[in-house]
Amino acid sequence: MARASEFDTIARYFAPLSRGAPGAFNLTNDAAVWRPTQGMEAVITSDCLVAGVHFLADDPPASIAAKLLAVNLSDLAAMGAAPVGYTLAAAWPAEIDDTWIAAFAEGLGRAQENNGVVLFGGDTVSTPGPLTLTITAFGEAAAGRALSRSGAEAADDVYVSGTIGDAALGLRVLQGRLAPPSREAATYLAGRYREPTPRTRIGVGLAGLASSAIDVSDGLAADLGHLAAGSGKCIDVRAAEVPISAAVAACLEAEPELLEVVLGGGDDYELAFTAAPDRRDAISHLAETAGVGIACIGTVRDAGDAGPGVRFTDAKGADVTPKSAGFRHF
Amino acid sequence: MARASEFDTIARYFAPLSRGAPGAFNLTNDAAVWRPTQGMEAVITSDCLVAGVHFLADDPPASIAAKLLAVNLSDLAAMGAAPVGYTLAAAWPAEIDDTWIAAFAEGLGRAQENNGVVLFGGDTVSTPGPLTLTITAFGEAAAGRALSRSGAEAADDVYVSGTIGDAALGLRVLQGRLAPPSREAATYLAGRYREPTPRTRIGVGLAGLASSAIDVSDGLAADLGHLAAGSGKCIDVRAAEVPISAAVAACLEAEPELLEVVLGGGDDYELAFTAAPDRRDAISHLAETAGVGIACIGTVRDAGDAGPGVRFTDAKGADVTPKSAGFRHF
Repeated sequence: MARASEFDTIARYFAPLSRGAPGAFNLTNDAAVWRPTQGMEAVITSDCLVAGVHFLADDPPASIAAKLLAVNLSDLAAMGAAPVGYTLAAAWPAEIDDTWIAAFAEGLGRAQENNGVVLFGGDTVSTPGPLTLTITAFGEAAAGRALSRSGAEAADDVYVSGTIGDAALGLRVLQGRLAPPSREAATYLAGRYREPTPRTRIGVGLAGLASSAIDVSDGLAADLGHLAAGSGKCIDVRAAEVPISAAVAACLEAEPELLEVVLGGGDDYELAFTAAPDRRDAISHLAETAGVGIACIGTVRDAGDAGPGVRFTDAKGADVTPKSAGFRHF
Repeated sequence: MARASEFDTIARYFAPLSRGAPGAFNLTNDAAVWRPTQGMEAVITSDCLVAGVHFLADDPPASIAAKLLAVNLSDLAAMGAAPVGYTLAAAWPAEIDDTWIAAFAEGLGRAQENNGVVLFGGDTVSTPGPLTLTITAFGEAAAGRALSRSGAEAADDVYVSGTIGDAALGLRVLQGRLAPPSREAATYLAGRYREPTPRTRIGVGLAGLASSAIDVSDGLAADLGHLAAGSGKCIDVRAAEVPISAAVAACLEAEPELLEVVLGGGDDYELAFTAAPDRRDAISHLAETAGVGIACIGTVRDAGDAGPGVRFTDAKGADVTPKSAGFRHF
């Protein structure tokens, strides 16, 4: 099946995704118009995903769409912003045909419904290279209340939502480099890699509660490092309290050295944040209303002579800080 | 020269471009914060340029930066919006090194100063494909006053800014397919292709004056076709009154059949618009204050049985509508 012209592609597959955004003009204009709610400010993020770098080229189109939107909405959640809309710039290689685009747009439609956002506009072009997708997402936060990476204070608790390490092990499963103990575990882990869930309800609830926040995209160790650096503090993590799924626990039991991958690997799109100790009850309540676990995994302290940083210790006090405390693409 | 890590690249080359936008947090956060001026609404556009498709891979990095920003700001101008800021998502191929990125960022810095915008944020990733650059640009327009493609009325005048056809001939010069009569003409045409000038002052001035507007990116014939279709009208263009530069005039004299390329080719990033006849004085005044010519080239009339469309006629009334009245990438 061939590919329709740019105008037909937009009209057929993407214009329906702009319903609900009158300022998108049914994607027939040069630009879109959006007015943030009175008293709110716009929160803006942009993420680019490339086939073979950020997702597997043979991932299902609907999964790619869901992930593309999720990684952007995760950034908004980390700022405490409620998502509103997004623009999409897609560079299609020749092998992407209308069937593929239809499945992608359908998945994007489901993902935007799940997340309460609409398409504002964008651009579609051809590329001789790999599929390259950029979403710029827009949210709202009360003026002056958006979260940042720079507010952590000594004695604050350190928290993380959901479970950590699922996506990094899921990628290994999809690459054929890891065989989990059960088929269910394999499916679960792959799904967490392919279709992360942005923690929007938690993020919005954290505005006014958390002292700093970030989403776990580069890996728990690296992202806590960003919080530590942004705040000029040290973060001590009790590795045994980092929440993991049953699937990750089973993999770790079979192969304990995967702990490094779990604590250092990326793509979970959970939220890591800090909050004053007197916020504990409020954070428990937030976890309940969001229906997602939030675990207290460490403590912030003033940076010593060595400067800001992150240290993971095990139950016996031994240093288990991941060596690869940075983002490594496959 | 190798390429620095993503974090170093952002800190070294792009964070300085966010000065002047406190909500960009020096590009150290997950997202940026922006609050449109009271009474204004946000106008948002996104354009993706791919090396070898939308620019020549060996174009100077500063030219690519200037064009990337210009094509987005041109969309804002077509909506009557004053530009404020932008996000950049860059996918770098392996051959792009720090020297190239430094030159690109320097060019982007000059372009943003010329246009009064600042960098809000973005993303930089690696790609096995060609250089792929997406800018999402943000402007402001008085609430409810943004221009669209759908307001042209019968008897409105049809205008275009600047000169038409420069960029299409400039591309041919750069491809070695056209040798203009003089070196000056060649340099001028190539410059118009490589570094178009967004008509921001005209666009902002047109809010409240024009009944419909669009920027000339796909070609004058195709873009007037979009205005005609958006408004459900017919547009008659007096081809002899379409403004052309001395360089284009010289090329046309040597090769009259280039008229088709001039009227049908894209990438000029001028503004085409319609306005009621009683706006003529105001539009003359706008051209003077902006220091850019605005030519009246035609008239809007009600669509007949054949539906909306565009027709170009020469001084003798013969039909010279470009056959390729659509966008063709090279």
